[in-house]
Amino acid sequence: MTRQDKPPLPSKTEQETVTTKGHPSANGQCTTLTLTLGQTGQTDKSDQTNSNQGAVAPLALMLECGQSLSPVTIAYETYGTLNPQKSNAILVCHALTGDQYAASTHPVTGKSGWWEIMIGPGKPIDTDKYFVLCPNVIGGCMGSTGPSSINPKSEQPYSLDFPVITIGDMVKAQTHLIDHFGIDQLFCVIGGSMGGMQVLEWASKYSERVFSAIPIATAARHSSQNIAFHEVGRQAVMADPDWRGGRYAEQEKTPRKGLAVARMAAHITYLSDEALHQKFGRNLQERDHVTFGFDADFQVESYLRHQGFRFVDRFDANSYLYITRAMDYFDLFSENDGVLAGAFKNTQTRFCVVSFSSDWLFPTRDSRQIVHALTANAANVSFVEIETDRGHDAFLLDEPELLSAIDGFVKAGAKQKGLV
Amino acid sequence: MTRQDKPPLPSKTEQETVTTKGHPSANGQCTTLTLTLGQTGQTDKSDQTNSNQGAVAPLALMLECGQSLSPVTIAYETYGTLNPQKSNAILVCHALTGDQYAASTHPVTGKSGWWEIMIGPGKPIDTDKYFVLCPNVIGGCMGSTGPSSINPKSEQPYSLDFPVITIGDMVKAQTHLIDHFGIDQLFCVIGGSMGGMQVLEWASKYSERVFSAIPIATAARHSSQNIAFHEVGRQAVMADPDWRGGRYAEQEKTPRKGLAVARMAAHITYLSDEALHQKFGRNLQERDHVTFGFDADFQVESYLRHQGFRFVDRFDANSYLYITRAMDYFDLFSENDGVLAGAFKNTQTRFCVVSFSSDWLFPTRDSRQIVHALTANAANVSFVEIETDRGHDAFLLDEPELLSAIDGFVKAGAKQKGLV
Repeated sequence: MTRQDKPPLPSKTEQETVTTKGHPSANGQCTTLTLTLGQTGQTDKSDQTNSNQGAVAPLALMLECGQSLSPVTIAYETYGTLNPQKSNAILVCHALTGDQYAASTHPVTGKSGWWEIMIGPGKPIDTDKYFVLCPNVIGGCMGSTGPSSINPKSEQPYSLDFPVITIGDMVKAQTHLIDHFGIDQLFCVIGGSMGGMQVLEWASKYSERVFSAIPIATAARHSSQNIAFHEVGRQAVMADPDWRGGRYAEQEKTPRKGLAVARMAAHITYLSDEALHQKFGRNLQERDHVTFGFDADFQVESYLRHQGFRFVDRFDANSYLYITRAMDYFDLFSENDGVLAGAFKNTQTRFCVVSFSSDWLFPTRDSRQIVHALTANAANVSFVEIETDRGHDAFLLDEPELLSAIDGFVKAGAKQKGLV
Repeated sequence: MTRQDKPPLPSKTEQETVTTKGHPSANGQCTTLTLTLGQTGQTDKSDQTNSNQGAVAPLALMLECGQSLSPVTIAYETYGTLNPQKSNAILVCHALTGDQYAASTHPVTGKSGWWEIMIGPGKPIDTDKYFVLCPNVIGGCMGSTGPSSINPKSEQPYSLDFPVITIGDMVKAQTHLIDHFGIDQLFCVIGGSMGGMQVLEWASKYSERVFSAIPIATAARHSSQNIAFHEVGRQAVMADPDWRGGRYAEQEKTPRKGLAVARMAAHITYLSDEALHQKFGRNLQERDHVTFGFDADFQVESYLRHQGFRFVDRFDANSYLYITRAMDYFDLFSENDGVLAGAFKNTQTRFCVVSFSSDWLFPTRDSRQIVHALTANAANVSFVEIETDRGHDAFLLDEPELLSAIDGFVKAGAKQKGLV
């Protein structure tokens, strides 16, 4: 991965490192685009979040926790071409364990992008027509500044000295990426799960910069049950002695077992009871009878173990802590004195809210709350609940109704914006 | 705890150790009733499971895995008085992390029994009228033989040398307890969750010994999703280096963190999304604002941590592995070539099947499958789905509809059996 973690940077203004867009190179290293803002010790006090094209990027990112972060690198991928009017940009926001490789090969796993079904020539997010930007969130581990980045003060990885970031901070960082491209208004912001939280944050805080928004399988605040599952995952990571108070990198350790357990627990919540039943039932794993032992007798056990251990190879344990925490803190209700409608006051953004019938992590009622709040603002909003038994993960899968809903909504928006 | 783990025993016939029924003594030690069967190296080959009063107890328990277990101690509590006809006995089967202290003070926690709401004078399971027996399952850790018992061969705790036991084995052991009391037919067998699995096993395998059966919040086979959650729990325990391949006791360690994580994950499944929302919502724990850190900011986090660490004080990690495995293996469908009705052929037992509307661990459809299988046998069956938002744990709580359903069914059964 190309990172720009090491200050000092030569100029006080925007620092930019653009490497070849890309895919794994021969030595297995990843090249990706990065934008680096800021210099140590200098803080953005202006908070000109609605700044227009060409605005000078801040020297540091002032975070909701009150601390500032500098430098800030945002790693991102792009697809398609920005038109001369800079009016055809679609921002794709990734989920908890996602990254910028939405429609390109992942440099670590070698697998194709996590949303190739959605993004590409002739696909609902049509790269022949739109310029698609997908940044790695700050707090992440695929090139954007996160807990595994080097803390300029200590010249060691931040680890738990990294400030606790929020969905708001992630989005604020993204505004600078948009500024960097001189984009005044995004044609669309789209994402599922935590990506959907970012969409809602964009639509709430930077309404004028968002022509249309597609929050999928998400909520305006993280539920008690979801916080509970995240807490289990964090405790699993922290219980692993190889976590070492977060300082595992310096000691060349990784809390593999703890992170795998966290992923296993989380993975169950991404599916549905019905999906698991249909996929695995009580089928045995390459055996005719149970073995009366603790091996993975059942296919579902084998599958989960595989999911857990595969995840550890591509994800940083501290990033998992920070990003789950950001989701837990997300609450557009409390920010508006308990009234969600306040988050979307006088919005001109066009919305398409999508939920899945079997999603028990972000059930349809969470999406309905968003729709009600938008309706209270007389917003232009479509709502689609898709009947599927595939659970929360349906947003990543080949769900024909999802693809056609996004396709139709994007096309109608393009017409209204005069893009076609 | 009084245990009878150490062979050799003086006689080849039934061995019995009866200590004062009870509660914590002055020195904090628990006294409980125990029945010990068998002598090392001698195996029950007769399998006279429908044996009558006074039958000679087997010398060892032949398990489904093909191994035999000897000696076998069953720790149990009793309430009420067995009538001269020995016709008024109710067997109470406990859940995964339950024990024999259904209506008496727990010797470790000092808390009142887990089903005091149900069992006692004038209560639905009326100890003025019935003789109530509640055994600790084999595989457990409250006095019945389990992985923490001494292996007569090695004179060390069994640990993972303990054979993998099944719900069938647990129930088979219980038949010997019933024999010990000279009880030909139980008036009723009742239990929730894994207790309900034991009820179904009794009704299926020992139908003639069960006048009435009340399986609550349970299933005739463990679902894929439930196996998945159990696997996460087991992996959490095994990931803890203090588990030491199961041999933690000899090294005076306990996998506290791993077992706590397992319990936390499981605990979420015992509640409902709505119950968590109502109980905690996004309320903060003794603070006005989030702390931007990894402390338990939210009440639900604090609650879960507390549940996890409290559990570790009273439960054995290896028992957790074995008992979850027993539940995973439970499958009355596959035992009957996929047709559940085969499990209850020609049953004369009266059934009351109970489910809870918000239980997503053992949802109502699992109970309906049981009801359909019973109906296919023209069995006498009542089915009650109780509307509640308290999730799976509702069977342990003060649910008026549950109490009145059990009360009504037990009273009607007593009349039919001529007990009143």
